[in-house]
Parts: sequence; C-alpha cells; structure tokens
Amino acid sequence: MAGEIKQVLVVRADLKMGKGKLAAQVAHASLMSYLEAEKKSKSLAKEWIETGEKKIVVKASGEGELMRLYEEAKKEGIPCALVHDAGLTQLPPNTITVLGIGPWKGEEIDKLTGNLKLV
Amino acid sequence: MAGEIKQVLVVRADLKMGKGKLAAQVAHASLMSYLEAEKKSKSLAKEWIETGEKKIVVKASGEGELMRLYEEAKKEGIPCALVHDAGLTQLPPNTITVLGIGPWKGEEIDKLTGNLKLV
Repeated sequence: MAGEIKQVLVVRADLKMGKGKLAAQVAHASLMSYLEAEKKSKSLAKEWIETGEKKIVVKASGEGELMRLYEEAKKEGIPCALVHDAGLTQLPPNTITVLGIGPWKGEEIDKLTGNLKLV
Repeated sequence: MAGEIKQVLVVRADLKMGKGKLAAQVAHASLMSYLEAEKKSKSLAKEWIETGEKKIVVKASGEGELMRLYEEAKKEGIPCALVHDAGLTQLPPNTITVLGIGPWKGEEIDKLTGNLKLV
C-alpha cells in the first residue's frame, strides 16, 4: 500500500538459533531500529505505533548479505540497527544476528528487502 | 543479580506460531512494554537500553495463565503490555499471544515469572 509505514527485521538463515533466542534477537533489533527512527522522525515513529506497528520478519543468506543491506539502508538514510549477540549462549561472541530496518516508508524499504523470503 | 533490570516476554505454549510470527509478536510485546516502562520511569528504561536490554523469552500454558500474570503485574505496578494478534494470518482474530513485562527490577519480575520455562 502506498504510504504504509513498516519495519522489516532481517535474520540470518545460516545461524541455528532456537525459537526463543531468535525472538529475543528480533525484539532487540526492533527496539534499536525504532529508537533510530524516532531520532529521525518522531511523527513517523509515532504514526507507526498508532497504526499497529507492522513488522515483517524475513531472512538473508548470511552475514555478508546482512552487512550489504545495512550499508544500503544507511546510504539511503533509512533508520536501521544491527544486533550483535553477546554470545553467552548459543552463538560465538559478537555474532551479527539480525538487522532491523525502519519503521520507515514501506516502498523505500521494499527496494532493499522486497526480494527476501518470510521466515 | 541484585539490581538487575530486565524484560520478560511470556509466550503461549499452546499456540502453534511459526518462528517468524512468534518473533514478530515478541518484538511487539517488547516495544509496547518498553513504552509503558518509559512512562513510569524514563531513567530505568534508559538504563536498561544502555546496559544491553536484557530480554528473556519464557512460556506459559495458555491464555488463562497469561491473563493472570498480566493482572498480577498491573497490581504490583510493574509496566507490562499484552499483545492481541490481528489474526490476519496464522491465528483467529484478536488472539492474545504474548505478555511483555518490564523492563523493570529483575527480582520483582521473578516473583511472577521465575517458575516459567525458557522457550
């Protein structure tokens, strides 16, 4: 839909994270990226909250694709945040796990992540 | 640890949600509950963000247990938020899926959720 505001959470398909671990990492990315969006546009962030916080969880092949999307989002001026896991449990320390993009204009995010599959 | 601030996300073990769906619902609960915490104590919410946003994902047996925990948290003055799913995909409309509790003092949350198992 034109004008829709959404957030996309991109997870790494190559990491074996349990359901709870994945959920916590996605929540981390979601909140960090929300705080970035709020810095850029308080009104857009507020509108996203008030219209139901649309969130989509998709997967990328690995760290390389995540980093590429992160750099592209930053270049386009789209608020985003990368989660590094402390690595206390299932993963090696400082593993990049999830990229949060937005909340931002859906059509701008789709240019970056529109081809990625849902988790 | 005494004085630790954390957030607990309680999901329903009786719902069959896919990994991505679950992650999005947990992220929803996390953000809503964070915004409640921020209303109660801006400094506590900020401290949680700055100390790494500790999040734990646990499971409850079903809607009854989730509602009971929600009522208890409210009674104790602990910031919390209940997520209702719009039900456009995997679930019937308005299904309660996740309860977010905190960020708040860990020992106070533990009184409510300390016996729940990790997801």
